[in-house]
Amino acid sequence: MANYVFGVDVGGTTVKLGLFDVSGNLEEKWEIPTRTENGGVNILPDIAASVQAKMTERSISKEDVAGVGIGAPGPVDGEGIIHRAVNLGWSEMNLKKELTELLGGMLVEGGNDANVAALGEMWKGGGQGHKDLVAVTLGTGVGGGIIVNGKVVTGFNGSGGEIGHIHVEDHETTACNCGNYGCLEQYASATGITRLAEQKLKSSDKDSVLRQGEVSAKTVFDAVKAGDELAVEVAVQFGEYLGKALAVIAGVVNPEVFVIGGGVSKAGEVLFDYIRPPYEKTVFHGSKETKFVLATLGNDAGIYGAARLVLA
Amino acid sequence: MANYVFGVDVGGTTVKLGLFDVSGNLEEKWEIPTRTENGGVNILPDIAASVQAKMTERSISKEDVAGVGIGAPGPVDGEGIIHRAVNLGWSEMNLKKELTELLGGMLVEGGNDANVAALGEMWKGGGQGHKDLVAVTLGTGVGGGIIVNGKVVTGFNGSGGEIGHIHVEDHETTACNCGNYGCLEQYASATGITRLAEQKLKSSDKDSVLRQGEVSAKTVFDAVKAGDELAVEVAVQFGEYLGKALAVIAGVVNPEVFVIGGGVSKAGEVLFDYIRPPYEKTVFHGSKETKFVLATLGNDAGIYGAARLVLA
Repeated sequence: MANYVFGVDVGGTTVKLGLFDVSGNLEEKWEIPTRTENGGVNILPDIAASVQAKMTERSISKEDVAGVGIGAPGPVDGEGIIHRAVNLGWSEMNLKKELTELLGGMLVEGGNDANVAALGEMWKGGGQGHKDLVAVTLGTGVGGGIIVNGKVVTGFNGSGGEIGHIHVEDHETTACNCGNYGCLEQYASATGITRLAEQKLKSSDKDSVLRQGEVSAKTVFDAVKAGDELAVEVAVQFGEYLGKALAVIAGVVNPEVFVIGGGVSKAGEVLFDYIRPPYEKTVFHGSKETKFVLATLGNDAGIYGAARLVLA
Repeated sequence: MANYVFGVDVGGTTVKLGLFDVSGNLEEKWEIPTRTENGGVNILPDIAASVQAKMTERSISKEDVAGVGIGAPGPVDGEGIIHRAVNLGWSEMNLKKELTELLGGMLVEGGNDANVAALGEMWKGGGQGHKDLVAVTLGTGVGGGIIVNGKVVTGFNGSGGEIGHIHVEDHETTACNCGNYGCLEQYASATGITRLAEQKLKSSDKDSVLRQGEVSAKTVFDAVKAGDELAVEVAVQFGEYLGKALAVIAGVVNPEVFVIGGGVSKAGEVLFDYIRPPYEKTVFHGSKETKFVLATLGNDAGIYGAARLVLA
């Protein structure tokens, strides 16, 4: 039986790679640049070369590797085909097939990066011990991963768990990156929180520490912790949008736990003070007790989850 | 190998039973009353007796029955335990274990009635050929069944697919049956459509055929088909609530098809004219092409799906 598994998380700037034992202990992690030029034609060959160099360096034979899991930013369907990975320069790419060939037939499994990160948090992070969970990544955007009975919900064409683009506001006049108006991501991401705060600073006469210095998700929640009234109003707005959206998600998949990660989650459990009340007010009673926890793997969730894809 | 399977659909007034061959052909269906008195203590024994009487009548041996599937109105968890089936008088009941014992050890599988009906529509109804589908039952209430990769999403405690209680309106002052305010069911069920129409008749001065005679989901959509302006306004409201809710659901599970059933669906494909525009306007692009079809099994979806539970 194989002793090792590789997890690969492809980002727009760097590719993160991890070598794990099959119990999920991270033995080593490293990064290579993501070469997006020429339609991203070098990305998979670079990954294959890096995996093979590591195997040579550590004298690991092909037979001793269970496989290579890969997460990438875009919808990945059940066949391992990624559609429209604009950040990487790819149009359509069969991750599984192409990387297997480059690795001389090694087993490859592929998934969407947010879904894969959810799997990582279930396996070794904040969601350990649960098999029905929803992971929410509050970063520059809002990403999500829905896990039902231990398996990621990929959806019909790889667009499952796209919770950042759930429609939550009918009166939005600025378009989301996706082209729609009023997506959750416009209010609950780091960018969205900054935007809510800037709007509030304009529309309110209240004094606030946010009027001096930088306005960001971090400074907003620092101000919330210091009792700044205006910042609290922003946090309430953020919590209304996110809490009600998570209540709807719970009505669909009834998870045992929400795992909240991404840059915004560095604010800590104070987030839950603003998310839970609107959640509990609007959620179906069967999901009222669903837990909220913080993600614990940070930027490593992707490589953990990618490795887990192979072992699932 | 067994040739037969029973499907049982427990309602508040009657229990529907069906005898199927293992390919899913319905050989015979019948009903017995649901005896809800004394905490519903007779319901499962009545079902067992009816199944056994049918086996005797048709000289079917125990070995020739693959099992008995049962759907019931309440959250059913992965162990086959139903929680809070208020319409049946049950508090908590292990459907699977109790009915197996009553049937001398025959295989029993249990599920929530709406989830089970979704499985029926996937197997032999409007959703045939699809394995990622969402079934929506627009009846007295709004029920749902979410199927991901061929399997019903039960959720952590059996509350998956409770889409009738998705929060869609912040300004509702009348409570839903579930205790919350502004649930989808309050606008998209037969009762909800009637209510929207009655409110519109009060708030509008427009002439309408609905001012003469009964107001119901049926008369509203009959009037829509006849071009009645006020009825069209009601249909637009209904479609806004339902279309946007289905868009959110699609953002979570990305189904290939929505199967719309229940009494309201007798209005036919005209419903889609009102559901699709708000759906397409707000849904994530990956789910824009999701199909809408009508359910075809009517009241038999439950027995079909229950039988399918056993064969899954």
